[in-house]
Amino acid sequence: MLYIIGLGLGDERDITLRGLDAVKKCEKVYIEAYTSLLSFGLSTDGLSTLEKLYGKPIILADRETVEEKVDNILSEAHGSDVAFLVVGDPFGATTHTDLVVRAKTMGVDVKVVHNASVMNAIGICGLQLYRYGETVSIPFFTETWRPDSFYEKIERNRKLGLHTLCLLDIRVKEPTLESLCRGKKQYEPPRFMTINTAIDQLLEVEQKHGKSAYNEDTECVGFARLGSEDQMIVAGTMRQLQTVDFGEPLHCLVIVGKTHPVEEEMLEFYKINTEKPEQKCNGIA
Amino acid sequence: MLYIIGLGLGDERDITLRGLDAVKKCEKVYIEAYTSLLSFGLSTDGLSTLEKLYGKPIILADRETVEEKVDNILSEAHGSDVAFLVVGDPFGATTHTDLVVRAKTMGVDVKVVHNASVMNAIGICGLQLYRYGETVSIPFFTETWRPDSFYEKIERNRKLGLHTLCLLDIRVKEPTLESLCRGKKQYEPPRFMTINTAIDQLLEVEQKHGKSAYNEDTECVGFARLGSEDQMIVAGTMRQLQTVDFGEPLHCLVIVGKTHPVEEEMLEFYKINTEKPEQKCNGIA
Repeated sequence: MLYIIGLGLGDERDITLRGLDAVKKCEKVYIEAYTSLLSFGLSTDGLSTLEKLYGKPIILADRETVEEKVDNILSEAHGSDVAFLVVGDPFGATTHTDLVVRAKTMGVDVKVVHNASVMNAIGICGLQLYRYGETVSIPFFTETWRPDSFYEKIERNRKLGLHTLCLLDIRVKEPTLESLCRGKKQYEPPRFMTINTAIDQLLEVEQKHGKSAYNEDTECVGFARLGSEDQMIVAGTMRQLQTVDFGEPLHCLVIVGKTHPVEEEMLEFYKINTEKPEQKCNGIA
Repeated sequence: MLYIIGLGLGDERDITLRGLDAVKKCEKVYIEAYTSLLSFGLSTDGLSTLEKLYGKPIILADRETVEEKVDNILSEAHGSDVAFLVVGDPFGATTHTDLVVRAKTMGVDVKVVHNASVMNAIGICGLQLYRYGETVSIPFFTETWRPDSFYEKIERNRKLGLHTLCLLDIRVKEPTLESLCRGKKQYEPPRFMTINTAIDQLLEVEQKHGKSAYNEDTECVGFARLGSEDQMIVAGTMRQLQTVDFGEPLHCLVIVGKTHPVEEEMLEFYKINTEKPEQKCNGIA
């Protein structure tokens, strides 16, 4: 049996009792390292916190391991119980559909243990989840690559009065240009898009297309480390949020659509303090 | 401190360690009864399962209690730790925004413990969460009240190739007509919309508006008891799903938009067995 277990968003205490039961009975435990180490603020220390809680060693499975060794992992899961841990929900922002498809094709049984993900935890800011349109991803722009297909989607959502969740780019284990040329494995340091960069890029794209999908005065909500003890949630215009230091990753951004009174009342608690913009505004922890 | 704690979707083992820690230190524990008792398959027995796990009594707070006694609950939370348990995530399909706003206004600190909700757990069917449009609610039609504002939203989502989550009506503690006239409190038995009823209503509304937003051959996914051990997930056309007995509540329905190949591969596992339509098709548990 392959258990795909969501760890939730904060730290090791966000696993469910059902998830912990499953981990405890598994012979091997893999953790998806793509975003995990980061979201859990884990270094090697962090990993040992999890290992202590679970009472067994955990194997880090980065993207390469998963891609190259998935058949090994699935073979193990054929004869014994194997856990594959992922941050958030197994089918949240990052999907593990492909792993499930391969497991089922090989005749391996799969059980999923759900948990919170960014996709539902953003509800904490008071904007109702059923009033969101299509979610968009904002990729890091480079000199030569500035894809902006998100613009059209945001424009559409805003015309309909819907909120838009913007997932911000994560670059982990990107091979260096040099290593690609020489065939040696070397990686760029990990990069996580900040809310500030996202807003810069959004405004650049608005200027290019000029369809007034949004502007510097458009209300947004910035989220950093959502679900953690030190999460930071700030509501304000794009211009205002550009002045905020949201600190450590992960960040995400919501562009606010048309609001109902109860949504507005709740957003009030997260409004930026314009007199002291440097003051952290955590709202509800 | 008021802790608003998501219980997840299955049973008492779906609370997180963080949530359980919080419950254990609270002096009073309320559980929102609006959908809880049902989703957890709880009778008085179910409640005592929770009480055993938590090691303390739980107070059932139905909609009336919350509306009438919210000030009492919040006063208690002023001087001590109070837990308010909700099924799913605190800000999932049903929102508790109003409770938070009142708490913050009264100067009561609020902490939220997230968990899975229908809004993200539907990801298990393989349709990517970021490819959903606006969520709709399907209310029970009566002789004289047949509101169909969901139709326009579904039509829009489908034109854009987006999937649509349909939340199905729940009627709990509805006063009887007699009790409304006489001022005595008597309630209708609880009602939960089935996938079959939802499809009947959807097709009726399509016939009325005739804009071909969808038809009997439109692919859908039906979910019953999502996140529970006995969940049932079946993919098929509206016509096919009408022949399926999904059993006990809660049900919800996804109307499939344009699919990517990996989404299709995953949906395959849930496809209805047309030769044995009565066969339960659980796919991934």
